[in-house]
Amino acid sequence: MTGKALLPELWTEILVPVCAVVGIAFSLFQWYIVSGVKLTADRGASSESEDGKNGNEDYLIEEEEGVNDQSVVAKCAEIQTAISEGDENSCATSFLFTEYKYVGVFMVLFAAIIFLFLGSVQGFSTKSQPCTYDKTTTCKPALATAVFSTISFVLGAVTSVLSGFLGMKIATYANARTTLEARRGVGKAFIVAFRSGAVMGFLLAANGLLVLYITINLFKIYYGDDWEGLFESITGYGLGGSSMALFGRVGGGIYTKAADVGADLVGKVERNIPEDDPRNPAVIADNVGDNVGDIAGMGSDLFGSYAESSCAALVVASISSFGINHDFTAMLFPLLISSVGILVCLITTLYATDISEIKAVKEIEPALKNQLIISTVIMTAGIAVVSWIGLPSSFTIFNFGTQKVVKNWELFLCVAVGLWAGLIIGFVTEYYTSNAYSPVQDVADSCRTGAATNVIFGLALGYKSVIIPIFAIAVSIFVSFSFAAMYGVAVAALGMLSTIATGLAIDAYGPISDNAGGIAEMAGMSHRIRERTDALDAAGNTTAAIGKGFAIGSAALVSLALFGAFVSRAGVQTVDVLTPKVVIGLLVGAMLPYWFSAMTMKSVGSAALKMVEEVRRQFNTIPGLMEGTAKPDYATCVKISTDASIKEMIPPGCLVMLTPLIVGFFFGVETLSGVLAGSLVSGVQVAISASNTGGAWDNAKKYIEAGASEHARSLGPKGSEPHKAAVIGDTIGDPLKDTSGPSLNILIKLMAVESLVFAPFFATHGGFLFRIFS
Amino acid sequence: MTGKALLPELWTEILVPVCAVVGIAFSLFQWYIVSGVKLTADRGASSESEDGKNGNEDYLIEEEEGVNDQSVVAKCAEIQTAISEGDENSCATSFLFTEYKYVGVFMVLFAAIIFLFLGSVQGFSTKSQPCTYDKTTTCKPALATAVFSTISFVLGAVTSVLSGFLGMKIATYANARTTLEARRGVGKAFIVAFRSGAVMGFLLAANGLLVLYITINLFKIYYGDDWEGLFESITGYGLGGSSMALFGRVGGGIYTKAADVGADLVGKVERNIPEDDPRNPAVIADNVGDNVGDIAGMGSDLFGSYAESSCAALVVASISSFGINHDFTAMLFPLLISSVGILVCLITTLYATDISEIKAVKEIEPALKNQLIISTVIMTAGIAVVSWIGLPSSFTIFNFGTQKVVKNWELFLCVAVGLWAGLIIGFVTEYYTSNAYSPVQDVADSCRTGAATNVIFGLALGYKSVIIPIFAIAVSIFVSFSFAAMYGVAVAALGMLSTIATGLAIDAYGPISDNAGGIAEMAGMSHRIRERTDALDAAGNTTAAIGKGFAIGSAALVSLALFGAFVSRAGVQTVDVLTPKVVIGLLVGAMLPYWFSAMTMKSVGSAALKMVEEVRRQFNTIPGLMEGTAKPDYATCVKISTDASIKEMIPPGCLVMLTPLIVGFFFGVETLSGVLAGSLVSGVQVAISASNTGGAWDNAKKYIEAGASEHARSLGPKGSEPHKAAVIGDTIGDPLKDTSGPSLNILIKLMAVESLVFAPFFATHGGFLFRIFS
Repeated sequence: MTGKALLPELWTEILVPVCAVVGIAFSLFQWYIVSGVKLTADRGASSESEDGKNGNEDYLIEEEEGVNDQSVVAKCAEIQTAISEGDENSCATSFLFTEYKYVGVFMVLFAAIIFLFLGSVQGFSTKSQPCTYDKTTTCKPALATAVFSTISFVLGAVTSVLSGFLGMKIATYANARTTLEARRGVGKAFIVAFRSGAVMGFLLAANGLLVLYITINLFKIYYGDDWEGLFESITGYGLGGSSMALFGRVGGGIYTKAADVGADLVGKVERNIPEDDPRNPAVIADNVGDNVGDIAGMGSDLFGSYAESSCAALVVASISSFGINHDFTAMLFPLLISSVGILVCLITTLYATDISEIKAVKEIEPALKNQLIISTVIMTAGIAVVSWIGLPSSFTIFNFGTQKVVKNWELFLCVAVGLWAGLIIGFVTEYYTSNAYSPVQDVADSCRTGAATNVIFGLALGYKSVIIPIFAIAVSIFVSFSFAAMYGVAVAALGMLSTIATGLAIDAYGPISDNAGGIAEMAGMSHRIRERTDALDAAGNTTAAIGKGFAIGSAALVSLALFGAFVSRAGVQTVDVLTPKVVIGLLVGAMLPYWFSAMTMKSVGSAALKMVEEVRRQFNTIPGLMEGTAKPDYATCVKISTDASIKEMIPPGCLVMLTPLIVGFFFGVETLSGVLAGSLVSGVQVAISASNTGGAWDNAKKYIEAGASEHARSLGPKGSEPHKAAVIGDTIGDPLKDTSGPSLNILIKLMAVESLVFAPFFATHGGFLFRIFS
Repeated sequence: MTGKALLPELWTEILVPVCAVVGIAFSLFQWYIVSGVKLTADRGASSESEDGKNGNEDYLIEEEEGVNDQSVVAKCAEIQTAISEGDENSCATSFLFTEYKYVGVFMVLFAAIIFLFLGSVQGFSTKSQPCTYDKTTTCKPALATAVFSTISFVLGAVTSVLSGFLGMKIATYANARTTLEARRGVGKAFIVAFRSGAVMGFLLAANGLLVLYITINLFKIYYGDDWEGLFESITGYGLGGSSMALFGRVGGGIYTKAADVGADLVGKVERNIPEDDPRNPAVIADNVGDNVGDIAGMGSDLFGSYAESSCAALVVASISSFGINHDFTAMLFPLLISSVGILVCLITTLYATDISEIKAVKEIEPALKNQLIISTVIMTAGIAVVSWIGLPSSFTIFNFGTQKVVKNWELFLCVAVGLWAGLIIGFVTEYYTSNAYSPVQDVADSCRTGAATNVIFGLALGYKSVIIPIFAIAVSIFVSFSFAAMYGVAVAALGMLSTIATGLAIDAYGPISDNAGGIAEMAGMSHRIRERTDALDAAGNTTAAIGKGFAIGSAALVSLALFGAFVSRAGVQTVDVLTPKVVIGLLVGAMLPYWFSAMTMKSVGSAALKMVEEVRRQFNTIPGLMEGTAKPDYATCVKISTDASIKEMIPPGCLVMLTPLIVGFFFGVETLSGVLAGSLVSGVQVAISASNTGGAWDNAKKYIEAGASEHARSLGPKGSEPHKAAVIGDTIGDPLKDTSGPSLNILIKLMAVESLVFAPFFATHGGFLFRIFS
């Protein structure tokens, strides 16, 4: 009944790494082009031919501003260095090193826990054991799973850290170059920012794929035919990736928002100086924060999603006919999808950078949106091809104890439904967070009556924006689950993430533009330059929200797939809501996102209070600061953010990492199943609404500032009462959209993947409390 | 194995109505005492002996202020009449009549739906049919269930409406009397406000019990020995009660918060005039709103919870050994608990009104807290007695297809765990919303850096306040579910609600004090009177939050019990999270509270915008308004609130009422089960956090205003920047704590009870979509 895939095994072994290498090469090529924008003094001479149209709204040919002004270039270079590498305590690099030092300690401890817990399953015996799903055959000992899970955990963690670090490096590299290009027009600046985003997108996607591929092949040397054990160990890769992402998101999120909120509250609200004004003592911390929080955190996050969905698919595949029949091509179907995804994204990127051209501000958002549409359309064809050649025409998938017959076209539908659900989520997110549409305009309008109505409308908008994405996720789950059980859900998640390179590119574009604006302001460049970077940034807010939408949507699918794999591995037959153990798990699980958000928001609030007091103190005690004759003490502000983020990331981190261990060990797998399901269905809602509320407030503020319509002008200008109300909303939204919201999708994924990794342990030793009481 | 209860059937038949009548009599007696405070001119002579200590913080004997000033009395009487019965379009009575007119139309339509849907189950046949659970015996036809369900639906709806209306009448009756007594000291005013709350509490609890008791006995005449059919029909009573509560909460909530937000935004923020200042055109609407929203809405809500938990317990009991053996006393165990609860609350109330005495402001909160503790302790003994004499020592409970053996002491534990969980929820709520503790003080402190940090801290507080209540609910569910399946959960809910009379008394006390303050301000009474009513009101904010905590906690238990009964009735075997139909239901169900909140918050926001514009218009166009020489046009503001609430309550109402029908009919009972579970676990969190966040913001503002500590004074006084930030938080909290939050517990209960009522229909005709596709 189940044949082999059309694609021979050898071709698969060649195709996957080749695609990964192509992705990395493309990424390096984009970097090379970006580096063409020189931060040294010989820039003027080597500039490209200027072909006129360079992008203000009404197609006027603008003059270039200060392209040959060497002092501006030098200033930009100096600021970039300060942000990226500056003095020992006040730059992004040093913060990340500090963060990674602490995270490294955690990594070692947790690796030890994995080894000890999983090793204890068979009492550290080195003897082979009967397989979990087929007791008649013999598998490698539990100790091997412990060792290899630990190794893949470390590999995942290191890859994740590397992804975040590289992303940050690229972003800081690109910031000043985008600013400089903004002198030559919006279109030029857009290309630089977008290319830099693409560098990060392709590097991460390709790197993640390559490491996973190599790991599988190396592990195979030991495991040989025991694919069940092989892919069970591989899930450690997802756990490592996601746990680093958690710390990146939370630590980076607290860092950036403490600085941002602190800088805004004193600078914009009290002192009435512009955003990113160099007189503001918190401005360097703010810019550093954008790089470590939005870029490094997000890079780790999406890498984690990718790694986990691949692992979830692989572990289910290993106990389906692919694994049983040892069809390596079909086994690697998840990696094939990602490989083709890299090629598709490559073509898509060329469209934005070489085929079309941005000529006006209003073309920015459509250009980014087109990226999503193009990549989705082409990828649909790509999936069809992969499903046709990479899968047998009929096969069986493990479905909670039975084997379900699935056709290859059904699996195509599973992947495609995930892909298109991602597009829908992207569009809905754009609708609710872009100031081109009525929801954000309504929020801006409510500023007329003050901050309170702004907040009420903003919260309502966030709640409302949950509806369609949830239906989109529900439909994908229903389709993929019905066709191919948990494997279907996992590949639907992979489908949503298959265009991750493009997604990351447009996502990273946002903070790069944001920082470019900051540098323009700090370098004292003209008002027009700032307007151009602001326009880039407004589109960036929307794309950042879209990126978060993808991250959350895929996280929902991924964690369901991991959850299903966990339930299978832990030997649970049904997760019946109407049993006491499950229902209390469900209730408590649904509470966890609130507990977690309470921690992270309070952390941001407290750190911001300290930052405000420090900034106020500097304004009050440093003579000449407001006049610009004295320099603020940037380093103290950086220290406040650093200390707060390191200290405050520990409690939420422990909450997420310890919950599955405590629940699984003391209450057993049924309650843990309930917790996973509860945190999944509740966390998704909180995460989407928090991200979109924050994005909407930010853009409502930008809408009033830009004053592009009659209505917007009636609310402005900067400094008017409605604008002040909008700034308050924006400030509240900061921790929602950049700290608690995006961390929540890691929470739901991470608890699921951790449960899966520890499933053998829970199946043997779990439910301690119930066992002693009964 | 299963014996009979000790208490003979006849005694049960006597005990329940007697307790109900005692409750009503006690309520009337309290009313009589309150009416001793005369609103006519002969007050001075008939005043009681003044025994000195009358309640400012430091036990000074204060002079009575203007006790003999007849003009103040007349003014108070006039304002009260304006709020309660005034001219045709601007009073609480007329609003409620308008609301009930629309709701009446709904009631008739929905009654028709119930009749048609349930009647169609057996094609409107009048022939007897085999019973659902025991096919060997014969039960009354489905048509009888349709007829009697419709009747009990109407009865429940009418009782709910009556409860809300009476509550409003009592509250408006008490407002001005509390104001007048405040002249004679805090203690005196407290007693009047508390007695009035007790009037409402006892009337509602006793009335609900009596109507239910009479209905059961009347239905029994037709049903005879078919108790399964009898109690299935009785569930309509719960549905009727809760659906009216939904409209009361949503309509009233929008009314009161549109007025409140509108009045505050212009009055307090822009014009800098005090709260409840008679110059504010929205002030009458605000005061009317407090009565229709907080009092009438809450009365209907808690009545609904009570009716539903009784129905859930009864319907499960009817298919357990109680029903099978026709042990009427054991059958009526739920009503016996409520009966004893009335007696216990009666004793508890005497403690507050007659045994102890409030002498200082700081004694108010402890006095109210003692009410909770005393009633819980005595009730524990009460439950023990009822469990001992009202139940056989051993019996069986229906547990999803099997009969589970339960001992009477196990059922005692089920009821007691619910009762004590309620107390814990009450205490936690108090801790997070009272300004005597650090959480609210931290929120107040964060106002130092503006409204944004205030909002961030407030949201974080609300999220955090969810943790312990959820654990308390989870423990009660686990204990009661493990001992006695769904019957256990239902009686745990009844345990939590057994002290409902006391709970309602301290809950209603809040808005009564709030309005008393409003009347004092409007009547131009002295600053000291206002300080006293403010002190009463601050405690009232906390008790209101406690009341909401009870409402939400009990709603969680009730809806789980109803959900269990629905699943049994619909013939679902397991609600397995890992099936596509259930998991999408779970996800979409968890989204519903967000959708619902988006609607209600947006409604409040829009209505408040209109209100703000109207109030601004009046201040700008009516000459002499600010100087107090001209009267504002109160009626227009009242009209805005009325129109908004009537129009805007329809969409959220439809969402809640139609979701179970649509999901059940098109997607079937499995998906509906998922939706119910999802909305339950997600809605509880949103509701608790919204209520507590709002309560904390309100009290943080009051903390700054009262300036009772060094810290508080450093933030104040009124009009300071931190105070302004606090007012913004308070305004944002209004719709959260009084509109969307408390409506959510109705959402989760109502969808569950509706599913239960329509279960026979879904079991026969449900899952239309899946049936045509497969």
